[in-house]
Amino acid sequence: MTGTRIETDSFGPLEVPADRYWGAQTQRSIQNFPIGWERQPVAIIRALGVVKQACALRNRETGALAPDLADAIIAAASEVIEGKLDNHFPLVVWQTGSGTQSNMNANEVIANRAIELLGGQLGSKDPVHPNDHVNMGQSSNDTFPTAMHVAVAMTARDILLPGLRALLAGLEQKAEEFGDIIKIGRTHTQDATPLTLGQEFSGYAHQLRMGLARIELALPGIYELAQGGTAVGTGLNTHAGWAEAVAANMARITGLPLVTAPNKFEALAAHDAMVFLSGALATVAGSCYKIANDIRFLGSGPRSGLGELVLPENEPGSSIMPGKVNPTQAEALTQVAAHVMGNDAAIKFAGSQGHFELNVYNPMMAYNLLQSMQLLGDATDSFTQRMLLGIRANTARIDQLMRESLMLVTALAPTIGYDNATTVAKTAHKNGTTLREEAVRLGFVDAETFDRVVRPEQMIGPRD
Amino acid sequence: MTGTRIETDSFGPLEVPADRYWGAQTQRSIQNFPIGWERQPVAIIRALGVVKQACALRNRETGALAPDLADAIIAAASEVIEGKLDNHFPLVVWQTGSGTQSNMNANEVIANRAIELLGGQLGSKDPVHPNDHVNMGQSSNDTFPTAMHVAVAMTARDILLPGLRALLAGLEQKAEEFGDIIKIGRTHTQDATPLTLGQEFSGYAHQLRMGLARIELALPGIYELAQGGTAVGTGLNTHAGWAEAVAANMARITGLPLVTAPNKFEALAAHDAMVFLSGALATVAGSCYKIANDIRFLGSGPRSGLGELVLPENEPGSSIMPGKVNPTQAEALTQVAAHVMGNDAAIKFAGSQGHFELNVYNPMMAYNLLQSMQLLGDATDSFTQRMLLGIRANTARIDQLMRESLMLVTALAPTIGYDNATTVAKTAHKNGTTLREEAVRLGFVDAETFDRVVRPEQMIGPRD
Amino acid sequence: MTGTRIETDSFGPLEVPADRYWGAQTQRSIQNFPIGWERQPVAIIRALGVVKQACALRNRETGALAPDLADAIIAAASEVIEGKLDNHFPLVVWQTGSGTQSNMNANEVIANRAIELLGGQLGSKDPVHPNDHVNMGQSSNDTFPTAMHVAVAMTARDILLPGLRALLAGLEQKAEEFGDIIKIGRTHTQDATPLTLGQEFSGYAHQLRMGLARIELALPGIYELAQGGTAVGTGLNTHAGWAEAVAANMARITGLPLVTAPNKFEALAAHDAMVFLSGALATVAGSCYKIANDIRFLGSGPRSGLGELVLPENEPGSSIMPGKVNPTQAEALTQVAAHVMGNDAAIKFAGSQGHFELNVYNPMMAYNLLQSMQLLGDATDSFTQRMLLGIRANTARIDQLMRESLMLVTALAPTIGYDNATTVAKTAHKNGTTLREEAVRLGFVDAETFDRVVRPEQMIGPRD
Amino acid sequence: MTGTRIETDSFGPLEVPADRYWGAQTQRSIQNFPIGWERQPVAIIRALGVVKQACALRNRETGALAPDLADAIIAAASEVIEGKLDNHFPLVVWQTGSGTQSNMNANEVIANRAIELLGGQLGSKDPVHPNDHVNMGQSSNDTFPTAMHVAVAMTARDILLPGLRALLAGLEQKAEEFGDIIKIGRTHTQDATPLTLGQEFSGYAHQLRMGLARIELALPGIYELAQGGTAVGTGLNTHAGWAEAVAANMARITGLPLVTAPNKFEALAAHDAMVFLSGALATVAGSCYKIANDIRFLGSGPRSGLGELVLPENEPGSSIMPGKVNPTQAEALTQVAAHVMGNDAAIKFAGSQGHFELNVYNPMMAYNLLQSMQLLGDATDSFTQRMLLGIRANTARIDQLMRESLMLVTALAPTIGYDNATTVAKTAHKNGTTLREEAVRLGFVDAETFDRVVRPEQMIGPRD
Repeated sequence: MTGTRIETDSFGPLEVPADRYWGAQTQRSIQNFPIGWERQPVAIIRALGVVKQACALRNRETGALAPDLADAIIAAASEVIEGKLDNHFPLVVWQTGSGTQSNMNANEVIANRAIELLGGQLGSKDPVHPNDHVNMGQSSNDTFPTAMHVAVAMTARDILLPGLRALLAGLEQKAEEFGDIIKIGRTHTQDATPLTLGQEFSGYAHQLRMGLARIELALPGIYELAQGGTAVGTGLNTHAGWAEAVAANMARITGLPLVTAPNKFEALAAHDAMVFLSGALATVAGSCYKIANDIRFLGSGPRSGLGELVLPENEPGSSIMPGKVNPTQAEALTQVAAHVMGNDAAIKFAGSQGHFELNVYNPMMAYNLLQSMQLLGDATDSFTQRMLLGIRANTARIDQLMRESLMLVTALAPTIGYDNATTVAKTAHKNGTTLREEAVRLGFVDAETFDRVVRPEQMIGPRD
Repeated sequence: MTGTRIETDSFGPLEVPADRYWGAQTQRSIQNFPIGWERQPVAIIRALGVVKQACALRNRETGALAPDLADAIIAAASEVIEGKLDNHFPLVVWQTGSGTQSNMNANEVIANRAIELLGGQLGSKDPVHPNDHVNMGQSSNDTFPTAMHVAVAMTARDILLPGLRALLAGLEQKAEEFGDIIKIGRTHTQDATPLTLGQEFSGYAHQLRMGLARIELALPGIYELAQGGTAVGTGLNTHAGWAEAVAANMARITGLPLVTAPNKFEALAAHDAMVFLSGALATVAGSCYKIANDIRFLGSGPRSGLGELVLPENEPGSSIMPGKVNPTQAEALTQVAAHVMGNDAAIKFAGSQGHFELNVYNPMMAYNLLQSMQLLGDATDSFTQRMLLGIRANTARIDQLMRESLMLVTALAPTIGYDNATTVAKTAHKNGTTLREEAVRLGFVDAETFDRVVRPEQMIGPRD
Repeated sequence: MTGTRIETDSFGPLEVPADRYWGAQTQRSIQNFPIGWERQPVAIIRALGVVKQACALRNRETGALAPDLADAIIAAASEVIEGKLDNHFPLVVWQTGSGTQSNMNANEVIANRAIELLGGQLGSKDPVHPNDHVNMGQSSNDTFPTAMHVAVAMTARDILLPGLRALLAGLEQKAEEFGDIIKIGRTHTQDATPLTLGQEFSGYAHQLRMGLARIELALPGIYELAQGGTAVGTGLNTHAGWAEAVAANMARITGLPLVTAPNKFEALAAHDAMVFLSGALATVAGSCYKIANDIRFLGSGPRSGLGELVLPENEPGSSIMPGKVNPTQAEALTQVAAHVMGNDAAIKFAGSQGHFELNVYNPMMAYNLLQSMQLLGDATDSFTQRMLLGIRANTARIDQLMRESLMLVTALAPTIGYDNATTVAKTAHKNGTTLREEAVRLGFVDAETFDRVVRPEQMIGPRD
Repeated sequence: MTGTRIETDSFGPLEVPADRYWGAQTQRSIQNFPIGWERQPVAIIRALGVVKQACALRNRETGALAPDLADAIIAAASEVIEGKLDNHFPLVVWQTGSGTQSNMNANEVIANRAIELLGGQLGSKDPVHPNDHVNMGQSSNDTFPTAMHVAVAMTARDILLPGLRALLAGLEQKAEEFGDIIKIGRTHTQDATPLTLGQEFSGYAHQLRMGLARIELALPGIYELAQGGTAVGTGLNTHAGWAEAVAANMARITGLPLVTAPNKFEALAAHDAMVFLSGALATVAGSCYKIANDIRFLGSGPRSGLGELVLPENEPGSSIMPGKVNPTQAEALTQVAAHVMGNDAAIKFAGSQGHFELNVYNPMMAYNLLQSMQLLGDATDSFTQRMLLGIRANTARIDQLMRESLMLVTALAPTIGYDNATTVAKTAHKNGTTLREEAVRLGFVDAETFDRVVRPEQMIGPRD
């Protein structure tokens, strides 16, 4: 701490750390919300920089803002976007539900940094005022929801989708690699008819493929921005064309297909686009759960489990059991998946609780959604690299289990009827014998017919 | 009860009611699952009829099934589709997780009814066997998920979407009707800058419009059918082309754009398309919640609430308070919305819990999803007809509240600056005076300027 | 339908079925709420009978109600309690959130039945008026929450707790029966150190034991009744002592330890006691989930799974795979458990949404909570009778898996150190050999020491 | 970074930062789990210190551990407990589901710090080995769940309960302060019969009082510790009495009533005690939600809302609307409440997903539960100090609204009957007149009777 300076807002003067750019409203929020340990996510801070720069660009263009002030604001906003000023954003998630205090944090930091660039004095609001200049044409009520969408869109592009795509590619690779390995199927956790290990993994891959497609169906709603609605959606204190222009600026700054939202009343009072995306995330989280859970069971053992897969060994697994190795990446991914389901519940709850012109669950909804995206992206990437790609098939074990299966009898049913086939399977089960023995002994088929009909390699698809 | 007859399965003979078509496996399920009061939804039963008919049509076409047997099965399935045999489907939701028992219920009812049509004896399985003939080319593992999708698609078309579309149309109508009524906005539940009542309702309408669009994004996944995967997704005991043909038959029977699923392993082991649709339903449920909640608050009173809306009076509201009338349609809709959120949680949980080649939460997932659709469709329709369309604006009250608002000062901020405008608002609040009085008294503007700048009718959109 | 008669309320006259006791407000609700297929649960109807009788008893005692009217009301209420009038309660769950319409349904049915008993004319409200006499001293706002609590308490006693207690007893019986069977433990789904099968089941039993205890911790809150709060909690239109007296009457009628709630404002505006109970139900549902899931995996096979348990065979398991048998009771129970989690989410949501003096999610919360209780009670009972009690241990398989386990090396660690023990296990794993071979070959112990230290039967508890 | 040193585990050597005490397994976890931004909560780290110290104390006592080694471990563990070594615990939540890596982190840090205290070389494992000495008699499978319970118990005592108790005390104070203020009640958000503002707050207070009681019902389960179960619950590698002794040590260290769990199999394989506590937290979160929501609506305005309460003004509320003040503490608290509901869903899901002898959702469940407790404790404390205690009643407004209410007619119903009273209320509503005017004009009562019967001050409780 290098001393303090005085900053002022309409509630009066306050001491702030001298080496920080934030002002009175930020400091007041620090003091008024000593709640939890969760800071505003960095993605939100960077996105606020995007909003502020986009607006200053437009205000310079229309002449609403003097060029020198505009340029200083634009420069300061660049530093926010680049992450150079992250340490000047100390606020927690659990503040006012509009995110006003974080918007003011951005206004204050950019104003003071711009003042500094222009040779002025921190805290003077001169020549750059956080409300009149940095926040010009804006309200927290459109700015924060815009920052939420921009942050979500960036996180989707940079973290979530790469992780899911890596997992999809890995599953497709394994589906192909395992294409010729015929194994027993399991339904109800019980022995069933055979399929190939590649087919099994192709189902996983298809889950991910569709999951990615669903997220992409949900993203266009995220690309629609509230900016221009100002306080209640009307666009008070903006000019015609403002909303379109600042959205275009944000698209240019981020490289994302951002556009202005068609109805600003909806964009402030509801966050349904985020709720819908959360549902898509929870869906793919469920897919990941199923896949990771299957894999750890198929790789269970090494001696007393199903043992069909040999899983990579990444680290010691037990502080007491020497030599134990565990499917830890599957555990991280399933924990993440369960957590994403909880976040989805919180987001859905909050999304329904807007009142009149505003939903005041902004920071909480953004925090949960961004966390879900970060975790799913990170965990699927790690699972792919450290677990999936290293999986090997235990073909000897797979073959043995498949050949012993009583459910191969299903191939016989079209020939001898369901009821007779049932008798064969039940008798073999009871006697601990093979289907072939019992089918012949019971007189339903001769051995040649049995051998012709009951062939696992012909049971893995429709007949031609 | 008109006596019993004997039906048999591989576990032995059982008595069933003589006047019912079901067989031994259905009866066994009745006895083995005395759980709860929730029957398989009618939509599932009808959809099982669709599946059975579509398969029999194909089996007749390929010659796998003799024409007379096929025709009898087709005729019996028609009766299931038309609802004539609903009373022959007694099973509850809480049975085997594959829905095998309900599939067998359909097989048994159709077999017995076909036997009857062909002059045979109920329970004889001759000349129509429930497994060998009615279930030919099928497994519960593809049949039940197919029936789930068909039931969901029919319910979407017939109940859910009409209800939501009626609500959207009603909201659009009100948005237009209320287009010229300027009212106070409210953010954080507190007074804010004005907007029109039509703008407020346009936000609601946009929520519904997007909600409908989201459901329509989710439906194509529902149109993809598992049929043809049989036991584990491989299509064992089908022929090439089977899956495509039976999907086409089902499309023809239902008039829905049904197609065969591209990956049958995924279609049996996961129900992500249903999970995703549930997320879309929960999103629009959240929208409905917000809208209904707003409307009951805006219509609160009659004398001590916000009182901006006059709500239709449909029935006495209290057993003790004479003359009380309540926003009961809003209450039904918000209760439904909250219930849909719970169903979504259950569906998401269950969707993640597949093991290997099968997810065994079929009946429970179908029950929850179909219930959500039915309730949302019914409740939005009822809310529209009995609440929304009858709402009138209390224009006198609206105008009074709007004119007294201190937040009209926002229009002044671009002229006198945020800090001075704050002083005006705070002083008027403290003194119980008007903004105009204080703005002039404090010397920030003259009266003419105030009257030119602070005009609610110019505060409801951007300046030109 | 046997014609109609006219009934009247403050909104005017309405036709009702002549053979039904309900009146105009019930009929109006039928017409105004065509939503869903879920009727008010029977437990609620019976509980409304309890409330009405308890109040009439008190009103007779104080003289507020003439003895002949009181006696007729009491007699009619008895018929409601005994279920004789269930068919006269047609309303659905999705009505006004206070349950006023179902309260009026009870008032109207009891009034008309009492009129009938007294020789009057149905619909005349003479000599028994549904509001002035049957509802005397009551409001829906205290009556319906009271009925909810009474219904929940009865369902707990009659259905939920017996089911859970049966499951606990079954688990305890199995824990004892399996007490001497040493088996491999599994952590992370991977092989771990041994325990007895009885110990494993003792863990399940303890989950249930604690789950039952938790429900019993939550029930006292349910026993507290809102009755006496009337419209907003003040007790307007009651006399001093009323609340205590009617609670005592209800205790006598039901045999439950019912008491009057200490704060009626809380009892009307919130349903936290139900929310808390729902949490206890969801906790024990999670226990059931874990237990049923374990059991189906331990019983997986018959040839290609873990195969440690032999599960009862209750019915054919597949429409296509002859002879297949599945753990269907576990599937019913896990479906129920997942559904209960969804209900819990809905209940928690709704419980938070009261406004001012009333929570208007009554019918929905009651429906969900009663359903959870019914399903858990029924499903645990069925699981116990048809699955758990019939489980046998496959001791040959269990013994083989246990003896092959590499994790027996853990017993060696205190003697040779964790790092050396790790080398032994890893080498045996790599070479496919036994721990004993490698431990001796690597020179860490001699064979005698190994045999003395590595003894599964001494690994199932602390050393003395 | 001050260079690196080499640490080794059974997977080989690794470089770790020279100025950190952690070893190879910690470092390997850092590298293998680059997932998310959520570190293990500090409470978990401190609690691991408690476990390690308690075990070392017991191992010294029994002689299993040489006194000098034991003392060094005890001293190092003290530093962990006191928070001096927080920076040496870098691991994230999303690791192996057993928490093994964080247990090894504790073992490694304490071992190296003890080595340092004894003059040895970091990384040498000599004379203190992380597994053989620090982890002596322990497994991650009992240690981490124990640390979870200890961390939860400490957080309950230090953060959660103080916050909730402050809120309860504040509500009780306000209930008393507002005891004489008669106001209109509101049910269904509509005007209802009167009550006092103190009665309204007494309902809030009772919700909190019961919420606290419910948490206290759930805490005894938390006080039961898994320690002594070691790998699978059997207590392998411990001695008789160990579990009881180390629990007693932990009780002494923390001052909490900790005891050994009665069934260690349950304690490792399930975390039902945490699930149940989470349900209690979600219940009280729902209470907080309702209270905060009511207060912001009752304080809505300043001019166009209900306006019955005057809320403290803590900070500027809008970046665009000058002078706007918002109920921000209510927003923080309602956001927290919604988040806690999401955490509850995640915890319930994870709690059901144990397999066999272990639940591998430990870090995720602990993170969610500890977060819920921290947030609820912090947010209720902040809400109390900055919102609740500063609330004032706007008595003029309250009185005006109450006197205009049509629902005062309820007091008249016992005198003139429900139907006549309805006519009075409806007529006054239609004509915009008073109840008194219409009651007299319609001839139901004379003015004197009206004035005697309809007295708000006699409507706030039962008659004597």
